[in-house]
Amino acid sequence: MVRELTVALGERSYPIYIGEGLLQEAASYFDKHGVSKKSPLMIVTDSHIGPLYLEALENVLRASGFQVVSAVVPAGEGSKSLAVFEQLVTKALEGGLDRKSTIVALGGGVIGDLAGYVAASYMRGVRFVQIPTTILAHDSSVGGKVAVNHPLAKNIIGAFHQPAFVLYDLNTLQSLPPRDVRSGLSEAIKHGLIWDEAFVAWCDDNMEKLLALDPDALGYALFKGCGVKAAVVSVDETENGLRAILNLGHTIGHALEAVAGYGELTHGEAISIGMIGSAIVGVKLGAPQEVYKVTRRVLGKSGLPVRLPEHFDTDAVMRAMMHDKKFTEGSIVYVVPTAIGKVEVRSDVPASLVRETVELLKQEADWQ
Amino acid sequence: MVRELTVALGERSYPIYIGEGLLQEAASYFDKHGVSKKSPLMIVTDSHIGPLYLEALENVLRASGFQVVSAVVPAGEGSKSLAVFEQLVTKALEGGLDRKSTIVALGGGVIGDLAGYVAASYMRGVRFVQIPTTILAHDSSVGGKVAVNHPLAKNIIGAFHQPAFVLYDLNTLQSLPPRDVRSGLSEAIKHGLIWDEAFVAWCDDNMEKLLALDPDALGYALFKGCGVKAAVVSVDETENGLRAILNLGHTIGHALEAVAGYGELTHGEAISIGMIGSAIVGVKLGAPQEVYKVTRRVLGKSGLPVRLPEHFDTDAVMRAMMHDKKFTEGSIVYVVPTAIGKVEVRSDVPASLVRETVELLKQEADWQ
Ligand SMILES: NC(=O)c1ccc[n+]([C@@H]2O[C@H](COP(=O)([O-])OP(=O)(O)OC[C@H]3O[C@@H](n4cnc5c(N)ncnc54)[C@H](O)[C@@H]3O)[C@@H](O)[C@H]2O)c1
Ligand SMILES: NC(=O)c1ccc[n+]([C@@H]2O[C@H](COP(=O)([O-])OP(=O)(O)OC[C@H]3O[C@@H](n4cnc5c(N)ncnc54)[C@H](O)[C@@H]3O)[C@@H](O)[C@H]2O)c1
Ligand SMILES: [Zn+2]
Ligand SMILES: [Zn+2]
Repeated sequence: MVRELTVALGERSYPIYIGEGLLQEAASYFDKHGVSKKSPLMIVTDSHIGPLYLEALENVLRASGFQVVSAVVPAGEGSKSLAVFEQLVTKALEGGLDRKSTIVALGGGVIGDLAGYVAASYMRGVRFVQIPTTILAHDSSVGGKVAVNHPLAKNIIGAFHQPAFVLYDLNTLQSLPPRDVRSGLSEAIKHGLIWDEAFVAWCDDNMEKLLALDPDALGYALFKGCGVKAAVVSVDETENGLRAILNLGHTIGHALEAVAGYGELTHGEAISIGMIGSAIVGVKLGAPQEVYKVTRRVLGKSGLPVRLPEHFDTDAVMRAMMHDKKFTEGSIVYVVPTAIGKVEVRSDVPASLVRETVELLKQEADWQ
Repeated sequence: MVRELTVALGERSYPIYIGEGLLQEAASYFDKHGVSKKSPLMIVTDSHIGPLYLEALENVLRASGFQVVSAVVPAGEGSKSLAVFEQLVTKALEGGLDRKSTIVALGGGVIGDLAGYVAASYMRGVRFVQIPTTILAHDSSVGGKVAVNHPLAKNIIGAFHQPAFVLYDLNTLQSLPPRDVRSGLSEAIKHGLIWDEAFVAWCDDNMEKLLALDPDALGYALFKGCGVKAAVVSVDETENGLRAILNLGHTIGHALEAVAGYGELTHGEAISIGMIGSAIVGVKLGAPQEVYKVTRRVLGKSGLPVRLPEHFDTDAVMRAMMHDKKFTEGSIVYVVPTAIGKVEVRSDVPASLVRETVELLKQEADWQ
């Protein structure tokens, strides 16, 4: 069964296909979307994914007459750099890629962001196809944000460049390390919490299947997660308004990432703790208790952290948050849940309430 | 007198202001176009232009309350590199530029292309203002093409990023070296040759004034040159069709640049010879003699080269041309004049005819 949804962006609209074994059928999707056989295409992947799936993809594409160049970069966030970007441009030039060529990202969010920025920039923009191999990439494959990092700031050099289509092969997710599974689910749950109560209830009921990488459950969750992101992005392609709600859990989450030692928390883990924090803030500002309970239960079932390790210094976390948001006036711009599946962006959340919440996040039991 | 024209690109439309002393009035134009005073702006310029005009611009902007950060890069094409691009991003981060900031290019085509690519990429795109200081930049300030070079290819890494507005201060052109004056006029004459017979006749009559940098004549020529480019670009923003006519003289011109030693020919000089070549091809394919005569006369008056130095090897030039255009079938895609102010793009020009033309370009006298 192949699920399909459309990211509606006018003439930049594109479909996302989600199903089992799509890698084996890649050539027909490439054909359907008019990927050129006269100009070489370049697959970008990383050193973990390459050995698992690159040859298979190269083979099916070559067998159908596509000219394939491949580039394997080291796995990890470190490859989202201008240096690796330049190496990929060199590779594209040496491989003879021209303005009709396509860049294909085979990998997680790192590869999608990196290869996407190459596609946005090479000859001022060529076509781009995403073949995501992580659950988290359901997030990064919708919205067209592509970027590399600068030593002083993440994702600071980039563009908006929408893919021609996204091909999600659920089979490739079977090899994902458990920690990456949970990290990816964190953003999927977030998509439920901001937009879709029924999907949160479904996650609550189906978490075991998700953690066991049951293809049908995974396919449904990715379909729902992409759907929420697509709905938000369609309204706000270039991040001027509604997209802010996608930051649920990210104000505290980013601060935790900044304060934590490298590798202590994944992004998904940090925002899991952040979403618990948001639920606490929400209830303190008048949302029903249910908001906290359900958020806590679903994230807890997933095995994501729901407590802040005690060694995190509350002052350091608050400083990181204030820096991040250019906080000056004693209040913080914050995405606050008002119900499960509903949030509002508020600019009047007192810093003192957030500080109190960070403290509560360190306590073992439910805070109430 | 301030001349104004609009580059019509839907919601990306923008005005070009051309006049004397506009640098002194920059603050009011920045205000009018809503450049932020809350977020720092960054002026990018080069080591020739900086000492002449940077302080004046900084002063008028600061006096009106703008927060100004400046970056001076080495003059010359070498600064259109990813390394300098990265330095500018670092400078922007250190200077606290945010998503509401504006990047200002104060300089020629090199600075416009470089700073424009920074503006296109910084935080996935911030506002961009061009203050061109060369005649050639009348070309680069219309159309939104921004880029840096790769060691293997020019302008290969870039974007389409339209400025918010362009401010052309004719006074800054007074310090231009004569060779850059002529090089810039070469593209202006090209704009006449492809689109506007009356403007070619005007150049014919007013070349002395132009070479003497008479502000009114210069203002008129830049207005006309920008106008032609704007008309073409409005129809074809992302270079899929009509923009090809802007390559008049560039097929031979690029080949000459590739074959010449570094610095022997400027781009404007190379395409001057190339435009003579195109006129010859045009006449051989049936255009009136007049096309050659007028092209030859106007370019000759400007002091641009109209003859190919004998030491250029015809084989080498042909090889460079074939490489450039992926020529395989014995014919070349070529912009051919059919009258003064009219061209057509033909894909059936025999390579043998182009070779013959390259030979003729080396002969002293008019070829007929
Ligand atoms: N563009 C966006 O909108 C957006 C949104 C969210 C996150 N991101 C970016 O995404 C990145 C994180 O994405 P990610 O978590 O997918 O990271 P990732 O791409 O680094 O993948 C995580 C790890 O899993 C490995 N891996 C990937 N697929 C695998 C598979 N099928 N089997 C085995 N191992 C596999 C990778 O090699 C890597 O080691 C960050 O750089 C973040 O900035 C971007
Ligand atoms: N983006 C486009 O559409 C487009 C179109 C045409 C050309 N270009 C690019 O433009 C570049 C060439 O532009 P250019 O000829 O303006 O080169 P440039 O910017 O290097 O300027 C030429 C020289 O003149 C100096 N200079 C500039 N203004 C001066 C002034 N007012 N007084 C004294 N000296 C001054 C510069 O320092 C430089 O040494 C190339 O890189 C080319 O690729 C881009
Ligand atoms: Zn996130
Ligand atoms: Zn040119």
